[in-house]
Amino acid sequence: MRTAIARAEAARGTTSPNPAVGAVVLDRSGAVVGTGATQPPGGPHAEVGALAEAGERARGGTAVVTLEPCAHHGRTPPCTGALLAAGVARVVYAVDDPHDLAAGGAEVLRAAGVRVEGGLLAEEVRRGPLRAWLHTVATGRPHVTWKYAATLDGRVAAADGTSRWISSPESRAEVHELRGKVDAVVAGLGTVHADDPALTARDAGGTPRARQPLRVVVGLGDIPAGAKVADGSAETLHLRTHDPAEVLAALGARGVVDVLLEGGPTLAGAFAAAGLLDRVLAHLAPSLLGAGAQALGDAGVSTITGAHRLRVEGVTMSGPDVRVSAVPVRD
Amino acid sequence: MRTAIARAEAARGTTSPNPAVGAVVLDRSGAVVGTGATQPPGGPHAEVGALAEAGERARGGTAVVTLEPCAHHGRTPPCTGALLAAGVARVVYAVDDPHDLAAGGAEVLRAAGVRVEGGLLAEEVRRGPLRAWLHTVATGRPHVTWKYAATLDGRVAAADGTSRWISSPESRAEVHELRGKVDAVVAGLGTVHADDPALTARDAGGTPRARQPLRVVVGLGDIPAGAKVADGSAETLHLRTHDPAEVLAALGARGVVDVLLEGGPTLAGAFAAAGLLDRVLAHLAPSLLGAGAQALGDAGVSTITGAHRLRVEGVTMSGPDVRVSAVPVRD
Repeated sequence: MRTAIARAEAARGTTSPNPAVGAVVLDRSGAVVGTGATQPPGGPHAEVGALAEAGERARGGTAVVTLEPCAHHGRTPPCTGALLAAGVARVVYAVDDPHDLAAGGAEVLRAAGVRVEGGLLAEEVRRGPLRAWLHTVATGRPHVTWKYAATLDGRVAAADGTSRWISSPESRAEVHELRGKVDAVVAGLGTVHADDPALTARDAGGTPRARQPLRVVVGLGDIPAGAKVADGSAETLHLRTHDPAEVLAALGARGVVDVLLEGGPTLAGAFAAAGLLDRVLAHLAPSLLGAGAQALGDAGVSTITGAHRLRVEGVTMSGPDVRVSAVPVRD
Repeated sequence: MRTAIARAEAARGTTSPNPAVGAVVLDRSGAVVGTGATQPPGGPHAEVGALAEAGERARGGTAVVTLEPCAHHGRTPPCTGALLAAGVARVVYAVDDPHDLAAGGAEVLRAAGVRVEGGLLAEEVRRGPLRAWLHTVATGRPHVTWKYAATLDGRVAAADGTSRWISSPESRAEVHELRGKVDAVVAGLGTVHADDPALTARDAGGTPRARQPLRVVVGLGDIPAGAKVADGSAETLHLRTHDPAEVLAALGARGVVDVLLEGGPTLAGAFAAAGLLDRVLAHLAPSLLGAGAQALGDAGVSTITGAHRLRVEGVTMSGPDVRVSAVPVRD
């Protein structure tokens, strides 16, 4: 299953609106004879790729998949059919398919005499490669991660507006990695004016990665001439609204599942106020400024009992920075 | 040595201006026959207490001490004399004594035929029970820990000024524990007006602990009538200044070695600007406010290159809160 998860993780960002799934096929003796991951929409699912690699060696063997195999005809034939045709004797999967149309894959396989076990490393897959997709299936809107880099005292810029670089090279590399895995990167027009970010996924040397997320600029005015975000190096969408719900509706309609919100404070505050932040990823640099712009602007909170409460799901170091991942506590 | 460190840690806050030292005496067979810690000023040092407990069993045995035994006559006779009189054959200590008058204890013992080894768990002792004292010996002023509790976005209160409770019960308990171990707790008059803190060390039920730190209020105005900080439950010192250096000079003159600065933002900013913060202890609550007072006010920084740079020395969870301990990077 760890191999299947790794394959799924590597496919993240290329499969939406389909889930990034990984699969491994073992022969009768338990040896790995094929691996696969979801291909871009219209292409084969993970199981199909793994079975193709395994060929006849799959017969009597085991398929390990991060998501319950689908039993429905979508753009591709159902995976249950492919597993049965290949003669697989056993299927182990992590997460139950939550989608109405697709659910029932385990039952179809069992009815055909295949041994089926679900739930293996399910939590790891839920938090990892299937996180945004499961959220989208459950809520009907894309999953939003708000990422920010601030000082320990919560500043994203000094008093004179300078901010390069608050976070460490390690933290910046992580952000580019993350951009490479999401479907869309969103920033407000204010940030475009203030910082002129490219919002592309680049490697340590500054070279753009092969795959780029959709760049989304939110705001009523025009994107300034010459802005990096309009440099043609990746697709850019300008949404003339201030309403986070409208932003997510527009992105959802384009098949976007996983959104990285990169600020600024005003837009992040609007998302927080609307209850549309699904994860907060804070890179806290070990420095103090004592003045300058805040990470988060008006979030609709006037008194302490109205604070947006989160639960920390992980704290790690990112070079010298403290990296906190937290999710909302929704009553 | 772990036992000696634990004894030293337990004595913290009761020994200033002397160091909180722990000692363990082992007999010839290696069995623990005595432990001790520094007593309040004028009382015996750690070695003397441990030797008294061990009695004749110390002869031919080993003394384990967190600090190099002193060789000078201060308010008490030198510990080297007591160790030699007890017939100890071996002395193991953690940290070299940095104090001019006292240094040389290891040499005195070696000259008398005792086997002496220094440096065992020295870093742990340096960061732990001897941290503030070593700082004071090196710099001539008390060690200052700035402690604050803020939301993940750096707010210490909501827009309407409410702030109870931003941090968790676990974090608040830790603060009371810390207050019980320092010599003085410092707050600005603004904080006294805004929050009316008692600044005492209390247990979970709110009962004051046996030992209380000196409460210090900094500011030009008068302490408001009826303020908890003037309730007589512990000693309170009012320093009519805004200058952090003056505050530390006044406290140093009183024998204060270890200071806990509890804000508010203006006073903390003044200490940061003066380069007088020696440790930052942040309890970051997993919540977002988007408005309200900042943890740190003007710290004399106008541009990003002037940021007060720190190094994270530890990140732990304090209940649901993220607890970051960081120290200044001084070039």
